[in-house]
Amino acid sequence: MSGFIARRRVEFSDTDMGGVVHFSRYFVYMETAEHAYLRARGIEIDTQVDGRRISWPRVAVRCEYARPARYGDELEIVVAMARRGRTSVTYSFTFRRDGEEIARGESTAVCCAVSSDGTFEAVPIPPVMVARLDGEGA
Amino acid sequence: MSGFIARRRVEFSDTDMGGVVHFSRYFVYMETAEHAYLRARGIEIDTQVDGRRISWPRVAVRCEYARPARYGDELEIVVAMARRGRTSVTYSFTFRRDGEEIARGESTAVCCAVSSDGTFEAVPIPPVMVARLDGEGA
Amino acid sequence: MSGFIARRRVEFSDTDMGGVVHFSRYFVYMETAEHAYLRARGIEIDTQVDGRRISWPRVAVRCEYARPARYGDELEIVVAMARRGRTSVTYSFTFRRDGEEIARGESTAVCCAVSSDGTFEAVPIPPVMVARLDGEGA
Amino acid sequence: MSGFIARRRVEFSDTDMGGVVHFSRYFVYMETAEHAYLRARGIEIDTQVDGRRISWPRVAVRCEYARPARYGDELEIVVAMARRGRTSVTYSFTFRRDGEEIARGESTAVCCAVSSDGTFEAVPIPPVMVARLDGEGA
Repeated sequence: MSGFIARRRVEFSDTDMGGVVHFSRYFVYMETAEHAYLRARGIEIDTQVDGRRISWPRVAVRCEYARPARYGDELEIVVAMARRGRTSVTYSFTFRRDGEEIARGESTAVCCAVSSDGTFEAVPIPPVMVARLDGEGA
Repeated sequence: MSGFIARRRVEFSDTDMGGVVHFSRYFVYMETAEHAYLRARGIEIDTQVDGRRISWPRVAVRCEYARPARYGDELEIVVAMARRGRTSVTYSFTFRRDGEEIARGESTAVCCAVSSDGTFEAVPIPPVMVARLDGEGA
Repeated sequence: MSGFIARRRVEFSDTDMGGVVHFSRYFVYMETAEHAYLRARGIEIDTQVDGRRISWPRVAVRCEYARPARYGDELEIVVAMARRGRTSVTYSFTFRRDGEEIARGESTAVCCAVSSDGTFEAVPIPPVMVARLDGEGA
Repeated sequence: MSGFIARRRVEFSDTDMGGVVHFSRYFVYMETAEHAYLRARGIEIDTQVDGRRISWPRVAVRCEYARPARYGDELEIVVAMARRGRTSVTYSFTFRRDGEEIARGESTAVCCAVSSDGTFEAVPIPPVMVARLDGEGA
């Protein structure tokens, strides 16, 4: 699979006094790219399945930075599903600018049922979502 | 009333490539200072009163900036209740650094009952909160 | 002039525990919309003019909120230049969702020369920028 | 060494519509805790050493989340220097609430000289900083 590509332009508020994108912002970029990837497969995050509210809290994330990104840069974020388990999905992200890789990251989210008091319980990924995640891609 | 003073140190991630605190961050500083002010009066935001969840969405905010703040600066934020209506409260904020005023802002929040579907309905401020807001101050 | 329209989709990280977009995020939306407006007129923020670095710090901003925005909402942000002075520009912003106004804001930025030590000095807007700001629009 | 402890209270704006602290905010918590750790050792980030501006961009970060944090929670962040190389330092972070571990992270920063055009070049950590990093602790 060639991968799903999300695009975004670096905003002024993404930068810090070092003149580059603050490292924590890459995780926001990843999350939004992941949501675009899921939307392209017909999957809504924070949805109801069989009367239960399903959400996807993260259990592990990481990012390695090779080159800084700067205000106005147009970034490509290649999203792929690296692993799918019974209750979790791991996504990989490659950040590119003008074809050059500048960072890469990974994020593991767990499928959870959210109870009315706001607590999270890991549950098997609903079959309808599994089918869409494992489908032929967008 | 001499006013309630919240203190915070500017964090690296609060800055932008201009080398100063991003203007949007002052609103986060204001909100957190407002919550400290309320906590000092025994008022919790996002609480239950008479079986209803009460929250305080903003309807109007503003800020004027006189001097930039920079990484590491220790800021004093003077919070005062400028006006209290039947359903809303307006707070004023003065930002100082080393005794010098660097910015001032204002924020109006409306007391709302939050329904189970997440919609907000303006309601009179519960009497227990009115008493604490109008109390002798911190 | 009918106004310049910037579009953006609400991201998960823009929301807060109230289930809606955090009020401070509208200021980021405004700034990015303003930059798109300027870019459409051939104006770069944080640029060099006649050997001086020019930047546009804010001196006053405000926002009024009529209806909450939520995750996934596609927002239109109408940007217009409300006033242009010798050293400053005031922009107005109207936020719409499905044609309905949900918020409106204003922002005043001052044209500043940035010295090598990072301090800001208000200067007249360079003629090349004035011509583009006052032009017939994009 | 028992470790350096930074403390912070979760702010409203740190939360997302899931009702918990957004996962990207832990990286801001880590960075600010790291800066407090360094300040306690007499080390300023973004400083001048021998006429060169020294900064510490991140090259790799990660975080694992065990339990969600919520608005108002008072967190302890235990900071330790996990590894120090010739040009880089890796810090470890343990997040605790009421004595219970809720997350742990790691961050590797590289000592860089910042040139006047804003580019970064990895350089050996200045001896004065090495002495303070390797000192007996706070």
